[in-house]
Amino acid sequence: MKYQLALCQFYSDEEKEISFRKAAEYIKKAAASGARVVSLPEMWNCPYNHKFFAPMSEPEGGPSYKLMQDLAKENDIYLIGGSIPEESEGRIFNTSYCFSPDGVLLGKHRKIHMFDIEIKGGFSFCESDTLTPGDKLTVFNTDLGKIGVAICYDIRFPKMFADMAAAGAQLIVLPASFSESTGPAHWELLIRARALDNQLYFAASAPARDPSSGYNSHAHSLVADPWGKIITSAALEETIVQCEIDLDYLAQVREEIPISKQAREYHQHEE
Amino acid sequence: MKYQLALCQFYSDEEKEISFRKAAEYIKKAAASGARVVSLPEMWNCPYNHKFFAPMSEPEGGPSYKLMQDLAKENDIYLIGGSIPEESEGRIFNTSYCFSPDGVLLGKHRKIHMFDIEIKGGFSFCESDTLTPGDKLTVFNTDLGKIGVAICYDIRFPKMFADMAAAGAQLIVLPASFSESTGPAHWELLIRARALDNQLYFAASAPARDPSSGYNSHAHSLVADPWGKIITSAALEETIVQCEIDLDYLAQVREEIPISKQAREYHQHEE
Repeated sequence: MKYQLALCQFYSDEEKEISFRKAAEYIKKAAASGARVVSLPEMWNCPYNHKFFAPMSEPEGGPSYKLMQDLAKENDIYLIGGSIPEESEGRIFNTSYCFSPDGVLLGKHRKIHMFDIEIKGGFSFCESDTLTPGDKLTVFNTDLGKIGVAICYDIRFPKMFADMAAAGAQLIVLPASFSESTGPAHWELLIRARALDNQLYFAASAPARDPSSGYNSHAHSLVADPWGKIITSAALEETIVQCEIDLDYLAQVREEIPISKQAREYHQHEE
Repeated sequence: MKYQLALCQFYSDEEKEISFRKAAEYIKKAAASGARVVSLPEMWNCPYNHKFFAPMSEPEGGPSYKLMQDLAKENDIYLIGGSIPEESEGRIFNTSYCFSPDGVLLGKHRKIHMFDIEIKGGFSFCESDTLTPGDKLTVFNTDLGKIGVAICYDIRFPKMFADMAAAGAQLIVLPASFSESTGPAHWELLIRARALDNQLYFAASAPARDPSSGYNSHAHSLVADPWGKIITSAALEETIVQCEIDLDYLAQVREEIPISKQAREYHQHEE
């Protein structure tokens, strides 16, 4: 089975209506060019900045949720809803909602690992200051195979992706806004490694860089195939990247290098 | 703490005495240029070919073992003994012996994962035809920190390296002879990813390509640092690659991006 995947790379605005218009426009364009699965970027309805997360958050079923549901139906696509700040019982989560072409909620991923880093003499960020982590893997069934969703910093925890692959994921979509500090060194490496180690398609769906924003997103949405090869990628600008997901090729790679059948038990180290 | 690491990239000969002379010469040269830890390549005393594994194998304590033990002492180095075919109770293992500068055996790694692959319309190899897998992780203590050892195809199993890092490994040495089929696509990617994901130094110690051999080794010995950056690498020819291992830098990276403290529990997927 083969199908087209598209990642919408745009940046969000402080005014939600502008982000809404962008989401609608990009999704429509992606669907018109044949995409069956379309993804939005991390925090597509809210600038990536602590001060906006709480005031721009919405409870489940809010306007952003409804818009995504409608856009999935209108465009007859599976929509991986990037992520938005979700409010629940006074806490804010970084949450991805995923919808079927019928508008049914198929998956809901709350980012599990908080982006708390402090590079010496450089960039630092502490997501834990405002956000609460989730605690559940997200893999769901579609007519196009099983899709897994994780968010940004989650990618630094390889076991999570091994578990998603074990749950059957053939495509993993990662809405993600890496920083300009770690992005150049780690973005491609982590995405390609997760694709190769788990022999699946791995799509990282980033916002474009907003020149007026305080947070310089690494952008560079890209898709790696089960051989670890980058098959499409963007630069910093607003754009759509699109490629073919070929589940027959995925099956071939898993047959050629059958690591999922070759993993062996071993004794832990003793000293 | 900082120290020098050297990887001896040469190819083995059907005549063991020739490989012995090469090992002695390369190790002496590496030690003379300041290396405190020196590695030999995978199957350094035996061409990588089924027909040689059994006839050229040795029981523990055989001539190759003794040579390595002597060379560690003579050169006052930690020696990661690449690998050799080890005979034990009628079975052949792909085994790495590791010695202290006093000639004490610190670690013994039997390759756990057999190199059994079959690329469509291309290269295939089935190590299981002649070799038996090991079943134990290898991490040992030295004056220069903890060192882990795994062999070649083991690298495709990320959990093994997470377990070695959890056991304290700061440097992992992987004697490895990738094929010219998968090497160009996967060699650097896998090495850099294991280094970055586990925030440690990862050294892949390959044989040079033997133009007269039936097996074209990818060669390209290289070392990646805890940031996932390649700090030294070779091409196809016989050579030594050497670099500094900086455990203060390792500690800094682990502080900057503290993933080992940030891993979170999560519920497995349910459907």
